[in-house]
Amino acid sequence: MGLRRDRGSGSRQGCCALKLHIVAYGKAGRSPESDLIDRYLKRIVWGATLTELAEAAAVPPPPPNSRTVVLDERGTPLSSQAFAALLGRWRDEGVRETRFLLGPADGHSAGTRAAADLLLAFGPATWPHLLARAMLAEQLYRATAILAGHPYHRE
Amino acid sequence: MGLRRDRGSGSRQGCCALKLHIVAYGKAGRSPESDLIDRYLKRIVWGATLTELAEAAAVPPPPPNSRTVVLDERGTPLSSQAFAALLGRWRDEGVRETRFLLGPADGHSAGTRAAADLLLAFGPATWPHLLARAMLAEQLYRATAILAGHPYHRE
Repeated sequence: MGLRRDRGSGSRQGCCALKLHIVAYGKAGRSPESDLIDRYLKRIVWGATLTELAEAAAVPPPPPNSRTVVLDERGTPLSSQAFAALLGRWRDEGVRETRFLLGPADGHSAGTRAAADLLLAFGPATWPHLLARAMLAEQLYRATAILAGHPYHRE
Repeated sequence: MGLRRDRGSGSRQGCCALKLHIVAYGKAGRSPESDLIDRYLKRIVWGATLTELAEAAAVPPPPPNSRTVVLDERGTPLSSQAFAALLGRWRDEGVRETRFLLGPADGHSAGTRAAADLLLAFGPATWPHLLARAMLAEQLYRATAILAGHPYHRE
């Protein structure tokens, strides 16, 4: 339960307390996007889960000691290295879960946006929700690969 | 064969002389990415094709009256609206084909980059080549939908 302070250790240990949790509106069903999401989430040794919300559902309250990232076209675009560094910092600070909120169709409420620790954009282009979900899953896997020194990021 | 100068007409006509041509290194094979590429290219009424190059192949010379866009992490990120406006301008100028070059694994040569009409990035993040190909196909369809006034961009 102790805080991880081994920032200088190279972060190559398999153990990571930070869980990655995608919370997304809408059902991916059986689709190419769903196949991509499954492919990348399965590769994440930190532990990664997807929760799909019905369109009218409220965003669940955040668990204790968590961070919330909201995917938003008006958000900040980050390089994969910077994204990895942020997740690595949160992990090292002892954060237990980072939630990534996507959708709903009409966009997130002002309250959800204001409460976010980060508004993240994949550049200024508009992406379909399901494709954005697959893109996020890939960036999450890539971030963990970068922090682990895995060659995926260079392949 | 005449140049299209109907920039003010609302661009809702089905006819478009500008062909969209993705020229990409590597084989997508049977994959979720390939399914996505097929899905979006089939929806493009302008006409859209994909040519896959072997890793050692040279970039084919550009056809007459064409434009070349190189996908490049160091390129310019564009909003979907700005990307659509650029393609619409080229179409209205009578350009017959726009080529979109992706890959190879070691990146494009300096010569290919220098000869490009546009270096395009999907934000500062690094994307796998096949996923970037699917993302490009989606943005191409979205651009034609924007120019046609089709509601896809707002859904």
